[in-house]
Amino acid sequence: MKKSVLFFAAVLCALQGFARNEVSQISVNYPITPVPFTSVKVDDGFWNARLQASRDVTIPLAFRKSEETGRIDNFVRAAHPSADNKLPQYQYDDSDVYKVIEGAAYSLQTYPDKRLERYVDSLITLIVAAQEADGYLYTARTCNPTKIHPGTGKTRWEGEEGGSHELYCFGHLAEAAVAYWQATGKRALLDATIRFADCICREVGPNPGQAMVIPGHQGIELAMVKLYLATGKKEYLDEVRYFIDYRGKTKTKWEYIQSHKPVADQTEVVGHAVRAMYLYSGVADLAALTGDENYIHIIDRLWDNIANNKLYITGGIGATANGEAFGKNYELPNETAYNETCAAIGLTFLNQRLFLLHGESKYIDMLERTLYNGLLSGVSVEGNSFFYPNPLACHGGYERSEWFGCACCPSNICRFIPSLPGYVYAVKDKTVYANLFLSNRATLDVAGKQVVLSQQTGYPYDGDIAFTVEKTGQKAFDLAIRIPGWVKNKPVPSDLYTYADNERPSYEVRVNGQPVKGDEAKGYLHLNRQWKKGDKVSVHFDMPVRTVKANPQVKADNGMVCFERGPIVYCAETADNPKGVFTYALPKRPHVEQTYPTNLFGGKQVGIRVAAQHLSLDGEGYVKTERDHLTLVPYHLWDHRGAKQMKVWFPQGTKEIEAVE
Amino acid sequence: MKKSVLFFAAVLCALQGFARNEVSQISVNYPITPVPFTSVKVDDGFWNARLQASRDVTIPLAFRKSEETGRIDNFVRAAHPSADNKLPQYQYDDSDVYKVIEGAAYSLQTYPDKRLERYVDSLITLIVAAQEADGYLYTARTCNPTKIHPGTGKTRWEGEEGGSHELYCFGHLAEAAVAYWQATGKRALLDATIRFADCICREVGPNPGQAMVIPGHQGIELAMVKLYLATGKKEYLDEVRYFIDYRGKTKTKWEYIQSHKPVADQTEVVGHAVRAMYLYSGVADLAALTGDENYIHIIDRLWDNIANNKLYITGGIGATANGEAFGKNYELPNETAYNETCAAIGLTFLNQRLFLLHGESKYIDMLERTLYNGLLSGVSVEGNSFFYPNPLACHGGYERSEWFGCACCPSNICRFIPSLPGYVYAVKDKTVYANLFLSNRATLDVAGKQVVLSQQTGYPYDGDIAFTVEKTGQKAFDLAIRIPGWVKNKPVPSDLYTYADNERPSYEVRVNGQPVKGDEAKGYLHLNRQWKKGDKVSVHFDMPVRTVKANPQVKADNGMVCFERGPIVYCAETADNPKGVFTYALPKRPHVEQTYPTNLFGGKQVGIRVAAQHLSLDGEGYVKTERDHLTLVPYHLWDHRGAKQMKVWFPQGTKEIEAVE
Repeated sequence: MKKSVLFFAAVLCALQGFARNEVSQISVNYPITPVPFTSVKVDDGFWNARLQASRDVTIPLAFRKSEETGRIDNFVRAAHPSADNKLPQYQYDDSDVYKVIEGAAYSLQTYPDKRLERYVDSLITLIVAAQEADGYLYTARTCNPTKIHPGTGKTRWEGEEGGSHELYCFGHLAEAAVAYWQATGKRALLDATIRFADCICREVGPNPGQAMVIPGHQGIELAMVKLYLATGKKEYLDEVRYFIDYRGKTKTKWEYIQSHKPVADQTEVVGHAVRAMYLYSGVADLAALTGDENYIHIIDRLWDNIANNKLYITGGIGATANGEAFGKNYELPNETAYNETCAAIGLTFLNQRLFLLHGESKYIDMLERTLYNGLLSGVSVEGNSFFYPNPLACHGGYERSEWFGCACCPSNICRFIPSLPGYVYAVKDKTVYANLFLSNRATLDVAGKQVVLSQQTGYPYDGDIAFTVEKTGQKAFDLAIRIPGWVKNKPVPSDLYTYADNERPSYEVRVNGQPVKGDEAKGYLHLNRQWKKGDKVSVHFDMPVRTVKANPQVKADNGMVCFERGPIVYCAETADNPKGVFTYALPKRPHVEQTYPTNLFGGKQVGIRVAAQHLSLDGEGYVKTERDHLTLVPYHLWDHRGAKQMKVWFPQGTKEIEAVE
Repeated sequence: MKKSVLFFAAVLCALQGFARNEVSQISVNYPITPVPFTSVKVDDGFWNARLQASRDVTIPLAFRKSEETGRIDNFVRAAHPSADNKLPQYQYDDSDVYKVIEGAAYSLQTYPDKRLERYVDSLITLIVAAQEADGYLYTARTCNPTKIHPGTGKTRWEGEEGGSHELYCFGHLAEAAVAYWQATGKRALLDATIRFADCICREVGPNPGQAMVIPGHQGIELAMVKLYLATGKKEYLDEVRYFIDYRGKTKTKWEYIQSHKPVADQTEVVGHAVRAMYLYSGVADLAALTGDENYIHIIDRLWDNIANNKLYITGGIGATANGEAFGKNYELPNETAYNETCAAIGLTFLNQRLFLLHGESKYIDMLERTLYNGLLSGVSVEGNSFFYPNPLACHGGYERSEWFGCACCPSNICRFIPSLPGYVYAVKDKTVYANLFLSNRATLDVAGKQVVLSQQTGYPYDGDIAFTVEKTGQKAFDLAIRIPGWVKNKPVPSDLYTYADNERPSYEVRVNGQPVKGDEAKGYLHLNRQWKKGDKVSVHFDMPVRTVKANPQVKADNGMVCFERGPIVYCAETADNPKGVFTYALPKRPHVEQTYPTNLFGGKQVGIRVAAQHLSLDGEGYVKTERDHLTLVPYHLWDHRGAKQMKVWFPQGTKEIEAVE
């Protein structure tokens, strides 16, 4: 079957004769303009391996899995509806294919690959063929006119709020279509998306004759904003506004999908974490694009709730498997932490948008924490296996899987990793924001003129970053370098976590070898000057090992500390600590015995050894203590050496050891 | 105001001229007949102090509190309805007064007290005066024709399922009325109750013109059964059947009140624990009185769920304060255990009824566990302060209170303690069941003839019980002595808890000094013989200290053990362990260093000292261990020496001490 599908696709593709168009730059209207992934060429010691694994392993794997699990066949069946057609396993299976295409698009832009592009083109042919005449595109309904998928409801939109995911699938279609058009200039998928978008705008909304439903799984909001930015069609932005303004006012009031009350009245992030992130990213988009103070107020309040009450030290969110949801304020259990990989990706979307709105570094600080810890843990170094939940402690037996029935996480990794270059820089007027630190060469549009900047760094394990100004079409510009929260002694932009040691990293910036003192504002050091080609900016961040304490209201972390170095959160695994990792106690003032370079995981890392006490039992079963040490490795690298024990937080003898209850 | 109320009551009382009638024996139709409290005179080293505290302190205190808090005035106001009358604080305030009267009735029967009886008579005069012409009696509605109490709903019964407690108040009225009639022969309250019962049977039910509601707070079910047994009016039993058969089929489907599904479909005990116990006691009544296999099946299944999944080692139930409810299966946290005193009392009701239905000792085993631990902890030795929740661990600051706004627990203690004599014996044909062990003299009706039996014992701290046959109107009878679960190596009638030691108590029974081997059946040792006056039966139960383990699925107790001796569960308190009780670990095989008699709490008790290891921290904050011991006292006596730390379960070194997480 697989072969025939691809043959069928190839034939259709040949018949339609796609022409390769020029890449079009979309017009963006955020207060701050992100420098698109198309303009940043990454060549980095840390990220190259990840980007390569993404294009060589993850994306091909996800396409293969999509074929094997019938996700591609669904489109073929929908192109030929029949009462004999079987239905997709999940009503949202289309979305996985779209997400992998989106990832392929980002990857193709950076690493052109004719074979991959041809394959995607044939998939697009299949997808377009599955579209109904009026633009509606949703294989779970279209493929069989007589059978109703249990997830979809009888007619279009009717089951949307209950979980039909029609609008959700559109969302991922739109993100894929815009990305593929950006990367290749090809419009076939974009045009199909526009037809579907127009169908939605006609059929779904608050007006008589329309289905007054809101998305049962959010995602369309931010995607339709992208389509608006790509096409300039204002009705798309209006539709997004409808989706957000009417949420909580239609029939289904349900905390799980954040429709328990109008968005304007929501002050606490609750319910399904991924849905929440996609919704709030859409609200942030509306806030950024419209400047409407109401949306800004809503989204700032909700972000504060995450930062103050619901964020794991790894930047993960969503404390509970029960509804894949946020827990209560300060409910952040470690071993049962859900921390879905998709939710981490969604939080990254939200933080990027809030940065583009407010220009404050705290959003990128949280984004960086998520990126290097709770998000990156979601995929193996090899790119071939994935975590759905990302707990902070494990008694063993839990490991990454090659795929999941509900495959949202692998397909989200497919699209996120190759999109990374789009998070490095942003520009506002003549200010260039350097948000992420990784070796790359970027071509920036600064007030209409081209500036080329390169970065060389061993970040995140090394705190030295060298910027070189390679082209100065614009000479006068303000290079705004993010001074990370961990340098400013704030692990997170709140009091949820604090540093428990007396270390205080300092930093130093030199221009052409001379120390400079720029102005610090909103977390950025501004170097506003006349630049010339060849100018060098050297940034040095101290990277001591830090111990972190949680707010006492986080019961799960009471009496415990964890370790960080730079943006990296550490954990202990059985592989390095054969006595297991649940039987160690730390002294009142944890001290680092050693940091050491290692390449255990096929790259360069820094390991840590801290003094600790090992507790065991004597023959009678009484506690026996001995001086020992704990070896720590980066959290995102756990579970590369067997599915054994792992732990991030360690008990510390600073109070009565009531934890023995 | 108080004075005038009592004066008014005394006048009314004099006018009505109560005649003292003979005590009537109610006709009971359970498969097994309980020997009523009126026939068992207790004179016991353990219970005398409790019974005396009940009549000298608790009941007078509860009457005084009922006056001070306006609960008596409510009846005066209802007798003179006015738009100016203030409303009761809680819509169910009447019920507390009824419960204290019920307790006073039991107490009066055993210890006649003219002054108390006169006082109760005046209260009854007030209560009867508050009754509406058609029998309806509920001060929260009657007292003011213009104001509606927020808890009651606009018209009769309309708010019942939401919480108006009209039927609940009737329930406690009926229990008080039957008890007072049994104790004194006076019918005034009973007649008023019958008028109210007839009003309910007319107005509430499934027929056209009736309010088809079920009780929002159960309690009427078992009470109306009592009224049926007292009056023989079958319509009361029919009404109970309606309440049970229609629960889950009326408008309000709500787990909290066990109306989420029909009772016949309920397989797990959920929601508000007290409501559940009152309901299931009613179901057990119906099962016992009708012999209907369906009810028997329902109630057996639900009891199994408690025994297997939801029972604390103290015999308490209701794991969570959230809704005063049962937790999930095996969800039995210690420090946050709710274990409402009223729920323990309700469980006792249920177990007594299931024993009367099935004649198996396991119900009395559970009843005894609750009685001596999780129920008795609800009231101080002095009888003047009360626990509402009864946790199994405490970090300090929690103590008994003199009263509560919602006063269900003190008033329930008022009625339970003096009713204890009714739980000692039961009779079926020529079998006499000896269920509880305490010194008493009981007059039993055995197949229509009088048998007088006495018990002398130092139980629960001493395992020797001496029965003497004092009168043998019936010579041939079968004395069935309960062999407690803890003697048969089963702390509870399930695998929820097991003994973790190798002790195995034995027991011995002698008749007139000669060892006998009776038949054991359903947990009872049967001595079926021709008895003569003066025959002596000596029972000896070994009482070693036992260590108990919870089923591994009870996460809260993982890696921990607790201690029992006889029916008594032990705890450690700061008063005996000044280093606190949260910093001790036990060896693999906990060993008792000493058991010792003590009279710390104004009676005779047995204390326990076990070997333990104390954990503390050295200057660096590393764990320091030292050999030490833990001193344990009976759980029900905790919090008599300051509101400090208390703990029942202790961590034990039998596995990797993962508890340090």
